[in-house]
Amino acid sequence: MNLAEPFAQAGLCPMLRLFVFMTLLDLLHKKRDGLALSEAEIEFIIKSYLEERVPDYQMSALLMAIYFQGMNDSETVALTRLMRDSGVVMDFSHVPGPKVDKHSTGGVGDKVSLILAPLMAAAGVYVPMISGRGLGHTGGTLDKLEAIPGFRTQLPLHKFRELTEKIGTCLIGQTEEICPADRRIYALRDVTATVSAIPLICASILSKKLAEGLDALVLDVKVGEGAIFKDAATAEKLARRLIATATHFRLRTMAVLTDMSQPLGNAIGNWVEVVEAIEVLRGGGPEDTKQVTLALGAAMLQAVGKSDDIKSSMRTLNKLLQNGAAWEKFLEVVTAQGGEVGVLHEPARYAQPTSIIPIKAAQAGYVAAINARELGRLSMALGAGRANLKQGVDPLAGIMLHKKVGEAVVTGEILATLQSSTIHIDEAHLHSARSSFSISEQSPKIPPLLLAKLDEHGRHELAL
Amino acid sequence: MNLAEPFAQAGLCPMLRLFVFMTLLDLLHKKRDGLALSEAEIEFIIKSYLEERVPDYQMSALLMAIYFQGMNDSETVALTRLMRDSGVVMDFSHVPGPKVDKHSTGGVGDKVSLILAPLMAAAGVYVPMISGRGLGHTGGTLDKLEAIPGFRTQLPLHKFRELTEKIGTCLIGQTEEICPADRRIYALRDVTATVSAIPLICASILSKKLAEGLDALVLDVKVGEGAIFKDAATAEKLARRLIATATHFRLRTMAVLTDMSQPLGNAIGNWVEVVEAIEVLRGGGPEDTKQVTLALGAAMLQAVGKSDDIKSSMRTLNKLLQNGAAWEKFLEVVTAQGGEVGVLHEPARYAQPTSIIPIKAAQAGYVAAINARELGRLSMALGAGRANLKQGVDPLAGIMLHKKVGEAVVTGEILATLQSSTIHIDEAHLHSARSSFSISEQSPKIPPLLLAKLDEHGRHELAL
Repeated sequence: MNLAEPFAQAGLCPMLRLFVFMTLLDLLHKKRDGLALSEAEIEFIIKSYLEERVPDYQMSALLMAIYFQGMNDSETVALTRLMRDSGVVMDFSHVPGPKVDKHSTGGVGDKVSLILAPLMAAAGVYVPMISGRGLGHTGGTLDKLEAIPGFRTQLPLHKFRELTEKIGTCLIGQTEEICPADRRIYALRDVTATVSAIPLICASILSKKLAEGLDALVLDVKVGEGAIFKDAATAEKLARRLIATATHFRLRTMAVLTDMSQPLGNAIGNWVEVVEAIEVLRGGGPEDTKQVTLALGAAMLQAVGKSDDIKSSMRTLNKLLQNGAAWEKFLEVVTAQGGEVGVLHEPARYAQPTSIIPIKAAQAGYVAAINARELGRLSMALGAGRANLKQGVDPLAGIMLHKKVGEAVVTGEILATLQSSTIHIDEAHLHSARSSFSISEQSPKIPPLLLAKLDEHGRHELAL
Repeated sequence: MNLAEPFAQAGLCPMLRLFVFMTLLDLLHKKRDGLALSEAEIEFIIKSYLEERVPDYQMSALLMAIYFQGMNDSETVALTRLMRDSGVVMDFSHVPGPKVDKHSTGGVGDKVSLILAPLMAAAGVYVPMISGRGLGHTGGTLDKLEAIPGFRTQLPLHKFRELTEKIGTCLIGQTEEICPADRRIYALRDVTATVSAIPLICASILSKKLAEGLDALVLDVKVGEGAIFKDAATAEKLARRLIATATHFRLRTMAVLTDMSQPLGNAIGNWVEVVEAIEVLRGGGPEDTKQVTLALGAAMLQAVGKSDDIKSSMRTLNKLLQNGAAWEKFLEVVTAQGGEVGVLHEPARYAQPTSIIPIKAAQAGYVAAINARELGRLSMALGAGRANLKQGVDPLAGIMLHKKVGEAVVTGEILATLQSSTIHIDEAHLHSARSSFSISEQSPKIPPLLLAKLDEHGRHELAL
C-alpha cells in the first residue's frame, strides 16, 4: 500500500486512503464542480502525474475542467511553484548585472527574440533566454535559430550560464532539467484544446521563467486573430494574472500588449525570419518588427531600473541597431553557439526552396486585413511548423508578405509568396493564402501596433 | 495518406484534410466553445476512437467539454444512433409477444432486476435483459447474479435469444458485439468524472437498449444521495431527455423517479442482495424493494399496452409474487443459465463471510437519514464492488441494515452489520458506517419512495 502514502502526505481523510484510484477522481470531481484545490492536492496531482501514477486521460479531463472552472490566485501560485520546483531552479547570482528575459504569448512572424536578445546584451543587461519550438499556427524561436547552419540550441546548463555571463545572452531550448512538469502538461494541453486556460498559461510561463533565476521579466502579450486571445480584454486579463502571480514570487514583471491581428513583419517561417531579423539588426527591416522590439527592450530597461522613460529608451536602443552594436553581438552569440556566420553576412548563399509560388490580387483596392492565424496554419502546412512536437520542420518553408494592411494593390499584383522544400504546394494552399487577404475599396484603419503597457500598478497607454 | 479518408467522408473542408491530427483538435475546440457538432463530425469522432486513431486523452478532454457545454437534441440522437450502430443490433421479431426491459440509473441495494425479470416473464411479457457490473458506489446486477454458484452471465447472443423466447427472460452481461463504442467510452467516463453528463448518460443507456430490439423500455431514474443526481429537478431533466431521445427512435419509454436517499431494502452487496431478492420472490422481503419492483413492473405493462392502470397492475403482479409464479420462473431462469438452485432454496448453506462486525447506535432516537452513497462506497471497500472494471468482487462482502429511516433505536442497538471475506475490517470502515447513520430526537419525515412517472406526454404523480 505504498500508493496510499501520498494521500497521507496530502492530508486527505483516512477513508479516502482506501481508494487509491478514486482519490484522484475525487479531485477531478472537486475541480469539475468549481471548488478550489488546496496546495497539497495540487502537489499530489503534479507528483502523481510525473511519477506516471495518473494517466494522461485523467490529466486531460482535469485540464479541461480547469479550462471551464478556472483557478483562483492561490491555486495559480501553488501550481506555478510546484511546476517550477519539479526541476532545477538556476542561480545566476554570479552574473554581475541585472538578468531580464522577454516572453511572448505566441504569434505569427514573431522573430523579435532573435533581435532583442543581442540588442539588450549590447545595451548592458543580461538575457538568459530559454525558448520554445513552434507549435500549431505559431512559430518558435528555436526552430528559427536552428535554421542557422550549426547553431546549437541544446546546451548544458553550465554552458548556458557561462555564455550568458561572458556574452550577455544565450538562447537555448527547454531542457529536461527545467520544469519537467510543465513540459509534460504543456504537451497534453496542446492536443486537448486546453492551451488557452489563463491559470495554466500563467503557471506554464512563470514556472519556466522563475527557474531561470531572473531579476525581471517582460511579457509580450499578443492580441488579435493570430494570438492565443483575439480580444484585448481577455489578453489584458491574462497580463494582469501573470503580473499578479509573478509579483507573488517577487519577480518584477511588465507586460506590453501588441497587435497580432496581422503577422509581424513580412516573413513567416524559419530561415526567412532569420533573414528579416538580420535586416533589423543591421538597421533596416520592417518598421512594425523594429517598433515592437524597441518597445519590449525599453520595458526591459525599465523593469531592471535602468531607465524610466520608454521613448528615450527606444531611441537609445535604436542607436544600437543603427551603429552595428546589436549586429556584432548577434554574430558573437551565433559563433559562441556553433553557428556559421558566413551565411548571415550573405543570406543569398543559403539553400533555396524547391517551390516558390506567388499569390496575386484578384481585385484592386487596399489590403484591409491579413488573417494571421490562417497564414500561421498555412506556414505550418508548408512545412515551417508542426502539428505535434514529434515532427521536424523545413527551414526553407514559409510565406513572404509583399503587402501589409493599409497598402494599395492593383489587380494581379503579388500579395505574398509561398515557399517550401518538402511539400507540393497545391490549390488548397493557394486558396488558404488568397482567402487570408481581405481587399477593400476604401483605405482601412490600421490597428495600433503597441496597445498598452501593464505593470503591478496598473495599465498605461503607450502613446509613442 | 489513408488517414485523410475519414475527413473526406466526414465532409470536412479540403484544407483540414492536410491536418489529420489537427482536425480532431478542431472538433474539440468546437465543442469546448459551445458549438454543436454535426452528425458527420460525431461519426468521425466515434469511428476514429474505435479504430484507435484518437487517443484516450483527447476523448476524455472531449467528454469533459461535453460535460460543461452539453449536447442538443440532434447531437444526442446522433450520438445514440452511432453508438448503437457500432455493434450488433438484435432482432427479436421471432418472439411472439411484447419485449420490454427495465433500466436503472444506478443505486445502492438495488436488486430490483433480479425480481422484476422473472416476475414480468411470469406475467407474460418478454424481458431480454442486458445488465452491467457494479462500479464505484453502485452495485451491478451481473455481480449479484454471479454470486449464485454456476450462474453464467456471458452467453452467446443466439442463446440469449433462445432463452428469452423459451423462458420469457434471460439476464446477461454486455457482450463484445453490442455497442463497443459505449463500452469503451463508458470505461473512460467512469475514471474522468464525466459520468453525470446528461447527453452521455442518455446515449449510453439508449444505444444499448435500442440494440436489444425492444418494443418498450421502463427507466428507474433514481433520486437522492446515492443516485447519479441528488436533486429531483436534474433527475427529471435526465428522464425527459431519455424519453425524448427514445421517442425519436420510436421506442416507447416511461420513467419512474424513485427514492435513493437511503439504500433500497436492507441488503447491500452481492449474495446478501440475492437472498433479499429471493425473499421478495417468495412473497416476503422489505416493503420498499417490493413497491419499487411492482411500480416498475406496472409501468412495463403500461408501456407495452397490456394495462393502463398502475394500481391494478401492481395488485396483479403482487399476486404473482404471492402465489409462487415469479419464484418458479426465477428458478427456471437460474437453471437455464447454469446456476445451482439448491442454495436458493436454503441460503443458509451458502459460504459465510470471514468477518462480521456489528455497528451499534451511540445514542437513542430515530434514524433520520442513512447516507446511501457513503454506504455504497463502504460496501465497495469491503470487497463487494470495484473501483475499476479490472477488479473482481467478493460475493460475500456487504452490509446488512437492521434499521431504516424512521425507525426508533435505543443506545447500543445494532444499526447495521458489515461483512467481508477478503478485507480486514478496520476503524476507518466502522467510522464510515457509523457516520452514515444520522440519529435525531424527533421522528423524521420519511421521503416518498415513488416520486413520479414520466412519459412522452409529461409528468404524472404516483399517488398509490
